[in-house]
Amino acid sequence: MRVVQVPLGKRSYSILIGQELLARVGPQCRGLGLGTRCAVISDSNVAPLHAKPVIRSLARAGFEPALVCVPSGERSKFLKVIERCCDQLAAHRLERQSFIVALGGGVVGDLAGFLAATYLRGLAWVQVPTTLLAQVDSSVGGKVGVNLKAGKNLVGAFHQPRLVLCDLDALDSVPKREFRAGLAEVIKYGIIYDAPLFRRLERDMAKLLAREPDALAPVVARCCEIKAEVVAQDETESGRRAILNFGHTIGHALEAISGYGKYLHGEAIAIGQVAAARLSATRQGLSESEVERIRRLFVAVGLPTRLRLTSAQREKLVRAMQLDKKVSGGEIKFVLARRIGEVIWGQPVPTPLIERVLNHSAFRIPHSAF
Amino acid sequence: MRVVQVPLGKRSYSILIGQELLARVGPQCRGLGLGTRCAVISDSNVAPLHAKPVIRSLARAGFEPALVCVPSGERSKFLKVIERCCDQLAAHRLERQSFIVALGGGVVGDLAGFLAATYLRGLAWVQVPTTLLAQVDSSVGGKVGVNLKAGKNLVGAFHQPRLVLCDLDALDSVPKREFRAGLAEVIKYGIIYDAPLFRRLERDMAKLLAREPDALAPVVARCCEIKAEVVAQDETESGRRAILNFGHTIGHALEAISGYGKYLHGEAIAIGQVAAARLSATRQGLSESEVERIRRLFVAVGLPTRLRLTSAQREKLVRAMQLDKKVSGGEIKFVLARRIGEVIWGQPVPTPLIERVLNHSAFRIPHSAF
Repeated sequence: MRVVQVPLGKRSYSILIGQELLARVGPQCRGLGLGTRCAVISDSNVAPLHAKPVIRSLARAGFEPALVCVPSGERSKFLKVIERCCDQLAAHRLERQSFIVALGGGVVGDLAGFLAATYLRGLAWVQVPTTLLAQVDSSVGGKVGVNLKAGKNLVGAFHQPRLVLCDLDALDSVPKREFRAGLAEVIKYGIIYDAPLFRRLERDMAKLLAREPDALAPVVARCCEIKAEVVAQDETESGRRAILNFGHTIGHALEAISGYGKYLHGEAIAIGQVAAARLSATRQGLSESEVERIRRLFVAVGLPTRLRLTSAQREKLVRAMQLDKKVSGGEIKFVLARRIGEVIWGQPVPTPLIERVLNHSAFRIPHSAF
Repeated sequence: MRVVQVPLGKRSYSILIGQELLARVGPQCRGLGLGTRCAVISDSNVAPLHAKPVIRSLARAGFEPALVCVPSGERSKFLKVIERCCDQLAAHRLERQSFIVALGGGVVGDLAGFLAATYLRGLAWVQVPTTLLAQVDSSVGGKVGVNLKAGKNLVGAFHQPRLVLCDLDALDSVPKREFRAGLAEVIKYGIIYDAPLFRRLERDMAKLLAREPDALAPVVARCCEIKAEVVAQDETESGRRAILNFGHTIGHALEAISGYGKYLHGEAIAIGQVAAARLSATRQGLSESEVERIRRLFVAVGLPTRLRLTSAQREKLVRAMQLDKKVSGGEIKFVLARRIGEVIWGQPVPTPLIERVLNHSAFRIPHSAF
């Protein structure tokens, strides 16, 4: 079992990465000084697969767990679902010392974390991410929240979990499309922070796609480490933490205008990262060969890397970007790469250039790719 | 103008108490280092009376205010109203540097504060409380939140404002019933913390009911001071801050079972405080004469001090109390008075005793009162 520490002073916590962790949730929660009652928040896909061992383990460890199940998918990440969950927490009589266990992917983590941040003005919570995306991304850093029709994660909080348990066995049951989408965040860590990780991904992608635990364990742990390092430097995203948003400005906007659910988050940010790489070539001198390595790695995973938009859709996308939390003074700010492994944040990019990159010609696959 | 400091380290702020402050919101917001765009959150009662000078003052000071108006009353304090407000903040393109101005009573403060705590994961906010209750209570301490069907303020956050402006002139337009309800919180400060304040209230109640600014100013300032002292000692209510909940355990439950809106908050906690005084006599030796002084002061204000409940209603009320945030280990905890000016918190009271006090006989007005 690998252990990654997230060093945040009084809010520090550990991430455990290994196999057979679902059945050890209960014992792991002992010693955190939590109350007896808890709620396991999960969704209609994950609960039938994994809730039983988690609930049993909690009950055996002396806790009184209740299961709260939401419909799977991004459409659950809205305040009206939060309200319904709160009603169930009230019915289960959760108290201030009670805690919440988030069992599922990124949507469950964001939703359960926002519940934990706000129910009774804040409860402790433990994350048990069951998808690759959740394990490498949303389980680290305490960003929680829900969507508005106007945009993704526009309502939320910073609320650190007390413990994160990443069970690699759980990844076996992740649908292929979703697993691939998770790799989009993994690739991101290589681009923004770690050229050797990027090369390792280029080398080991076949093994990762085959979900070999020996290949996955070091990659998941390294991604958590990188995110923990970045978050520890800037917990509430006043500066450096913004680098984690590489590819997300366009990605989030794409999810918003397509009504959430057409693209998986990982698919949207795959497109967003390739677009950000193109912008980086124009604005930061990222070499064309590195742009191409980035694009090819996404293609190797089987992720989308381009969009064909009508001019009306393109305008809508830019308008959605202007609602992004990273906008300041009305300017859309990007994270751009200087080279693979090094990015800078807070870079304003003029709207016409964004539109040019979004224009399909900028996304044309070069002949060399065939 | 009186100034009360709320000393909370990096989150410290000032409360200004005086006349003609509404027209000075804009200049006061300069120097807080806020962005240009802001939203004034108000309600259908307060906005027609007071929004114009506030908006004008903000615009003249160089800000770009938008007015977001919710229906007046406790029924607006629900997540679905939060969602509608968020959509308007998105339409007005609020950014992370933008801020929110809460213009109204306790409901507007709680709702706007929760918006500020969660929109874009947290915006700065300025409170302009226009009711007595909001000026002496909800404007100090950063507790914000909304209700669930299951109970009051069950969803929320701690989010300190950057500045509070208490305009005593605004109190002139507060309806009589609501003004009286505000005095229930004022009396509470006397009971929990300050016997001289309680005596002053006994002496000056006629002038306060006539809303004489010379009588109001020192009382409002003293209440803010007391709350600031208590909150500074215990920002997130892990201990001592709980004394502010004197009368609230029963009061909140009463509001919940009567569907919010039948009783004003101040009316419910007037009943709750008299019941808590009765419990204090049994459990903490509060003298019968002090119980009677407490009851008489509420009667002098014109506030309700008793309830007639059927046994089914009584049971429902106790069940609602068990949902209170102050419950731990399933026990209902009370703040009880040893004498006027001194209380202790976290006191478990057995359910049968609560029921006995809720029984109308415990609320019987003694013959001496006639």
